[in-house]
This record gives sequence, structure tokens and C-alpha cells, in this order.
Amino acid sequence: MVKVTILGGGNLANHLISVFLKTEGILLQQVFNRSLHKIKKFEGQTEITDNLDSIRKSDLYVICVSDSYIETLANKISNLDGLVVHTSGAMSLDILTRHNRKGVFYPLQTFTKDKNVTFENIPFCLEANKESDLEVLKNIASKISKKVYAIDSNQRKKLHIAAVFVNNFVNHLYQVGEDICISNNIPFEILHPLIIETANKLSDLSPREAQTGPAKRNDQKTIAAHKEDLSTDLKELYSLLTEAISKTETHGNKL
Amino acid sequence: MVKVTILGGGNLANHLISVFLKTEGILLQQVFNRSLHKIKKFEGQTEITDNLDSIRKSDLYVICVSDSYIETLANKISNLDGLVVHTSGAMSLDILTRHNRKGVFYPLQTFTKDKNVTFENIPFCLEANKESDLEVLKNIASKISKKVYAIDSNQRKKLHIAAVFVNNFVNHLYQVGEDICISNNIPFEILHPLIIETANKLSDLSPREAQTGPAKRNDQKTIAAHKEDLSTDLKELYSLLTEAISKTETHGNKL
Repeated sequence: MVKVTILGGGNLANHLISVFLKTEGILLQQVFNRSLHKIKKFEGQTEITDNLDSIRKSDLYVICVSDSYIETLANKISNLDGLVVHTSGAMSLDILTRHNRKGVFYPLQTFTKDKNVTFENIPFCLEANKESDLEVLKNIASKISKKVYAIDSNQRKKLHIAAVFVNNFVNHLYQVGEDICISNNIPFEILHPLIIETANKLSDLSPREAQTGPAKRNDQKTIAAHKEDLSTDLKELYSLLTEAISKTETHGNKL
Repeated sequence: MVKVTILGGGNLANHLISVFLKTEGILLQQVFNRSLHKIKKFEGQTEITDNLDSIRKSDLYVICVSDSYIETLANKISNLDGLVVHTSGAMSLDILTRHNRKGVFYPLQTFTKDKNVTFENIPFCLEANKESDLEVLKNIASKISKKVYAIDSNQRKKLHIAAVFVNNFVNHLYQVGEDICISNNIPFEILHPLIIETANKLSDLSPREAQTGPAKRNDQKTIAAHKEDLSTDLKELYSLLTEAISKTETHGNKL
């Protein structure tokens, strides 16, 4: 039985607490958060506390707070023995300066409050400064997910950039699509099946193989007609993405 | 029983032929294509021909060819009576100049060769110059799909632009993500669940509500660190999309 302590009360912390509570082989023995009310609902299922001094000995301490607070919180628990990990895609392992045994336990997914999460298919990106601790993390992650990867800090940084492109930036393009629909009295739901299929295609085809449309076909007539219809900001975005697709067609991989 | 004739042998034509053949209340009486070999596989299930002069009287003629060839083909069959439609998201209804009864029968989806299509959830955008013909199209479309919309030529043009953003441009961002992964020895599949969840979120949240990430949080430190890691082209794309997200946060709808 691995004894685990979670520090944090946000979205991800809540999802991790829920899954750890129901996973065999894991004993979630304590949850700490500065505001007790955010973890109040777990009272009775695990010990909850807002007092760092009352944190007990555990095998694994999972720091699950916003990026800017990780270092401060880690330093406050530098007296504790055991493996200390954070859950951030953007922060290096080395941010945990005062701990001898440290690691990263990063589930690569976008978490929505109040929306149930099935961890089974969420990739866990793991790192530790000791090989034996990487094994500890792999063991725990594989209890809740089928997808477990060893990813070092440099790779994780790149992965985080890639995630910004395929999540935040993609979501912004969805929003552009919605804005265009709203302005023209078109229900945005018309585009949902296309959006889902575009994402699903990746299980069969690489994005390069899956690409279609006026930029790929170099259909200048359609491109010009589209630009005419767009506001200045959107025209700039349209042009840049169209050029980027054309360059890919001409030069292949551009990194 | 509605008698239907399809003209074309590409991806969409093939998918439409398949679904029409198995739909009750629709008689696919003939398929025309310039190259017979592309529709050869339907021989025995329907009449196939490469001769425009042998096209028989039908209730509905579906022109299902590339945008640039629609007008030419439509003009070649201007002698035929009946309702003539094209299936293009990008072309106006009026391109069918010589036909008295005309319409558009546009399934808004990205079609992949050899990949089975379930039309049931594909939105059909319909238009006709006569109200009674719009009803004919609605009747046929609702036999194969649950999602049927009346969309006029101007709306369809905007919808096509929106589709370029949420499909072609999104797919390009997937490719950027893949390129970053490949360059750093990271399996791209790590990002698949995030990509799928980002798309699926739209059934519960608007893109504005779903947005997260450094641009949304105005996290300048992370943004600067990301830019430092990117090539010139990608830096430009990153900056433009980051600015666009910031503007949305500040000013709301920007169209």
C-alpha cells in the first residue's frame, strides 16, 4: 500500500483526490489545502487539514497547486521525508530545490471543474531525480492510467508548448468559428461534427496526411474571397495560417 | 420513391452513393462519371455511365464534383428536367445558371477516402430557389441525417470560412504540435487525449468558457519562455494567437 498525501484544492487536485480514493493499492492518507472549504467534501473519506505542521509521514507528497506557488509550498515542507512531486507541465523538476527525492507527476489533459474525468486514458508524464523513484511513480501512475511515459524536464517544456498549440490555440480557432457563426445567424453546432472528426482523424492519419482545404490546394481564388470577408485581425490570422500550410506543402517539416 | 442521379466519382460522391443505395425511399437510378473506373464498384447496384447523353429523367440530380468543374458540368446537363443541386460549401446557388429548379445539398464534414462515414450525425446545409424544392431536399436529407439546416448562399460562404478555421487551420496547429514532438523524441500520441477532450468540451462549454493557458492567464513569463524556444515562423504564429486570445479576454467578441 503506497501512502499518498495531496497538497492543493484546485481542479486537478480534486480530480486526483477522487481517483486516488477509489484506487486499490493507494492509501490517500491526507489532503492539505490553505482553504479548508475547497476540500471539505472529502472529509470522512480522508484526513483533511489546512495546517502544514500537521502533515504526517507519507511515501509520496503530490504538490498540486498553481505554478507560481509550487516553489513556496515545496520549501515550506522541506522538513518532510519522502518523495515530493509537482504536477505541472510548465515547471522544471529542479524547482523542488530543497528535496533530496523529487519528481514530476504530470497528467497531460485539460481539466474542467465538475466534469468527471476518466484517468484511464490520460497520459502521465513522469520524471524523478532517482531511477528508483521513477519506478515508484510509474507504479502509482499505472494504477490509474494505461498511458505512462518517462518525460524529462526539457521534453516536458516542449510538450507544454505543443499543448498550447493543440489546445489553447486550437480552442481560439474554435472561438473564431463560433464568432463567424453568431454574426451570421448560423448555429455553431453545425460545426461540431466537423470539429470532432478533425480531431478523430489523428488516430488514423498524421496531420500532414489529413490536411485539406484552399491553402493545401493553393486555391488562390477561394483564399482571396475569404480574406475579403474577414475583419483586419482575422485576415492577418487567416493569411499567416494559410502561408504556414503552403510552406508545409512546399518544404515539408519546418522545425 | 424519390429518383436520384449522382454525377461525380470522388470521395463525397462515393460516400453519397453508398448511403443512397441503402436508404429506404430513395432510388439511386444512375451514377455518371467521366472515368467509369472510379464508380465501377457500384455496377450491379445501380446503373453507371460515362456518357452524359444517356442520363435519364430523375427527380434530383446531385452534382458532386470539384468546385471548378460544377458550372461546366451543370451547363452540359441544362437540357434535363428536374431539380439540380451541387454539394459545395464554397459555391453559390447561382452558379447553376441554366437551371430553373436548383439547389444546394451540402454535407458539412471532412471526408476521407476508404474511411466509413455515418451520415446520421453529419449536418446537411440545404438551399433551393423554390420553397417546394427546399422541402424536397429536406425530405431527402432527413432520410440520411438527423441534422438538417436551411442555409442560404451567403451564410454558407461564411460557414465555409468558419470551417477553414476549425478544420484546416486547427489541423495545421495539430501538425505544429506533431513537429514539436518529433523534434524532441516525444510520441505525438501523448497529445491525442488532450486534442480529443479540447474538441469534446464544446458540447458543454463555449470556446470562450473553455479557454485556459498562458495567454488567457496573461502569464507573460511563460509566454516569453515559450517564444524563446520557437523558430521564427512559429514564434510569429504563437505571438499572433496569444495576442488574439488576450484581445478576446479584454474586448469580448471581436467580429
